[in-house]
Amino acid sequence: MQRLIEKIVEYQNPTVAGLDPKLAYVPSFIKEKCFEKYGKNLEGAAQALFEFNKALIDALCDIVPAVKPQAAYYEMYGWQGVKALAQTIAYAKEKGMYVITDGKRNDIGTTMEAYAAAHLGATDLEGEEVEAFSADALTVNGYLGSDGINPLLKICADRDKSVFVLVKTSNPSSGELQDKKIDDKTVYETMGDMCENWGKDLRGASGYSAVGAVVGATYPEMLGELREKLPHTFFLVPGYGAQGGGANDVKFAFDKNGIGAIVNSSRGIMCAWSKEEGSSEADFAAAARREAIRMRDDIRSVVGKMKA
Amino acid sequence: MQRLIEKIVEYQNPTVAGLDPKLAYVPSFIKEKCFEKYGKNLEGAAQALFEFNKALIDALCDIVPAVKPQAAYYEMYGWQGVKALAQTIAYAKEKGMYVITDGKRNDIGTTMEAYAAAHLGATDLEGEEVEAFSADALTVNGYLGSDGINPLLKICADRDKSVFVLVKTSNPSSGELQDKKIDDKTVYETMGDMCENWGKDLRGASGYSAVGAVVGATYPEMLGELREKLPHTFFLVPGYGAQGGGANDVKFAFDKNGIGAIVNSSRGIMCAWSKEEGSSEADFAAAARREAIRMRDDIRSVVGKMKA
Repeated sequence: MQRLIEKIVEYQNPTVAGLDPKLAYVPSFIKEKCFEKYGKNLEGAAQALFEFNKALIDALCDIVPAVKPQAAYYEMYGWQGVKALAQTIAYAKEKGMYVITDGKRNDIGTTMEAYAAAHLGATDLEGEEVEAFSADALTVNGYLGSDGINPLLKICADRDKSVFVLVKTSNPSSGELQDKKIDDKTVYETMGDMCENWGKDLRGASGYSAVGAVVGATYPEMLGELREKLPHTFFLVPGYGAQGGGANDVKFAFDKNGIGAIVNSSRGIMCAWSKEEGSSEADFAAAARREAIRMRDDIRSVVGKMKA
Repeated sequence: MQRLIEKIVEYQNPTVAGLDPKLAYVPSFIKEKCFEKYGKNLEGAAQALFEFNKALIDALCDIVPAVKPQAAYYEMYGWQGVKALAQTIAYAKEKGMYVITDGKRNDIGTTMEAYAAAHLGATDLEGEEVEAFSADALTVNGYLGSDGINPLLKICADRDKSVFVLVKTSNPSSGELQDKKIDDKTVYETMGDMCENWGKDLRGASGYSAVGAVVGATYPEMLGELREKLPHTFFLVPGYGAQGGGANDVKFAFDKNGIGAIVNSSRGIMCAWSKEEGSSEADFAAAARREAIRMRDDIRSVVGKMKA
C-alpha cells in the first residue's frame, strides 16, 4: 500500500479511475475499427475495450495515480474480454499506474491461493514462475473469514501487493447484512476489525497496512467513524460521482495528513464527454482528463496538502 | 434448479464432480503433449487442463449429473486458463451435464448485471446476443445484500438458471463472521433467510427455488438445522472427501424425498488414481469413475431412493 500512498502524495491526487468499459461507452469510431479488424464478435468487442482503455490511460497516467479495472465488465466479453483485462493491466503498469483489480474474489485454502497467484502473484509451471494478471492490488470479500484472506497476506508481504476487503459497500441494500448488530458492533465494524488484525504485520512507513477496506462514499458518517476506528486500514472509496457522493461526502475518509483513502470514479471519467456541453465522443480522452482534474481539485479542496 | 433435481433423480445420484485442475493433478502424458503442441507456457498449461477435464467428463457424464469448475484454478493460468474454463463448460453441457461455475461472484447493480450476463446469460453486442460462459448455475456471495442478487434473479427466471449463495462455508475460520449472532440468529442463518426470500417467486415443481445455498459438509449439525429452516432452498455441499466429511455428515442435508442437496467432491475424484492400490496416472479417468460410483453409492446408502 505504501507504493500507492507515495504515488498519491507525488501527484497530490487521492483518486483512482475505474475502468468499467461496457461496449456502449466505447466511441463508435473505436468499435467500428475493431469490428472491422476482428469481426463483430467477442474478440472485436474486447479489443475495442482495450483500445478505449489505452486512450484513457494515456490521457490520465501523468495526473491520476491508479486505475481500477472491474473484472465483471471484461468477463462479460468472455475469455476474449479477460484477455483485454490482462492487456489493460499490463499497459497501465507500463505507464507507471498502480493497478487495482476489482474482482471481489473470495474462497478458501488452496482455492484462494489460486486466486492470489492469478491476480497478484505468479503461477508455477513446473518450476517456472509465470505471471497471469499480476495487478498491484485486488478487492476481496471476507465473508469466509481468515482462511480466505491468509493466502493473500503472504503474497502481499513477498511481492509488495495489497488487498481491499469489502467492509461497507456503497449500495442501498448494503445494510441488509452489513448494518446488522453483532453484540455491540455492526457486521461492517466487525469486518473492519478483522482488516486491522489481518494487516497488523504488514504496515508500511505511513502506518497503513497492505490490507485496505472498501467503504462506500454514500455513507459519509460511517467513513469518518471507520477512519477513526481503523487507523492502519487504507480505504478504497467507491460511490463518488455517478453513485451520488461528492467531495464533502468523502472528506472524512482522510486522516490529518490528507492520506488514508483513494476515491474512485468510473463512469464519471469514462463517459465525461457525454456530460460536457459541446463535447463529442471524439473528445472522450481529453474530456476524461478534464473530469479527472476537476475531481482531483474537488477532493484536494476538502483534504488539503497530502503528506506521506 | 428443477433441471438439476430431475437429473439427480434420473441418475439417482446427488453428487457433483468439482473440476479444480491444478497443473500438478494433470497426468504427465497430457502435459507433455500440450507443452509440445502449445509451448511450456500458460496456453500449454491451460490446454492440458482442458484435455484433463474432457477425459474426466467423458468418464463421468453418464453417471454424475453435474460438474463444478472452480474459476480460481482457471484464472491462475491467465486468460488462456479462462478460455479453458469456457471450453470445459461448453464440453460438459454438450455431454448433457449440468454446469455450476464456482466463482463466488459478488457486486452491485450494473456490475452484477455484467457478471450475470457473463456467467449465466448473454452479452449484448449492439443488438446481437452472444453467450460468454453460460453455465447453468453460479455460486455467489451475498455480503452486499439484494442489490447483488436481484440482477441474477431475472436471468434465473428468463433462462432457467440457478445461483448458490454462500451461507455456511466448510472452512475452519468460517465462523469468524458466519457464526456471530445478530439478535437471536447467526449471520449464516440470516443469510439463509435471505436466500428463502430471494427465491420465493422462483420455485419449481419440487418446491425448491432457483436460489440455492452453499452449506459445508464439515458442519453436519448445521446442515440438518438449515434443511429444516430453509425448505425451498437447495444446498450445494462442499467438504465431502478431501475436506473430511463423509456420507453420515451430509445425510441431514436431504429431505424426506431424498432430495434437497448435491454433494461436491473435487480432488477425491480428480486424483482418485493416486489413492488406489496399483493404479497409475494413466488410469486417472477410470479411477475417477470408480471413485464417483463409490461416492454415489456411499451417499445413496444414507439417503435412499430420490423422488422429484
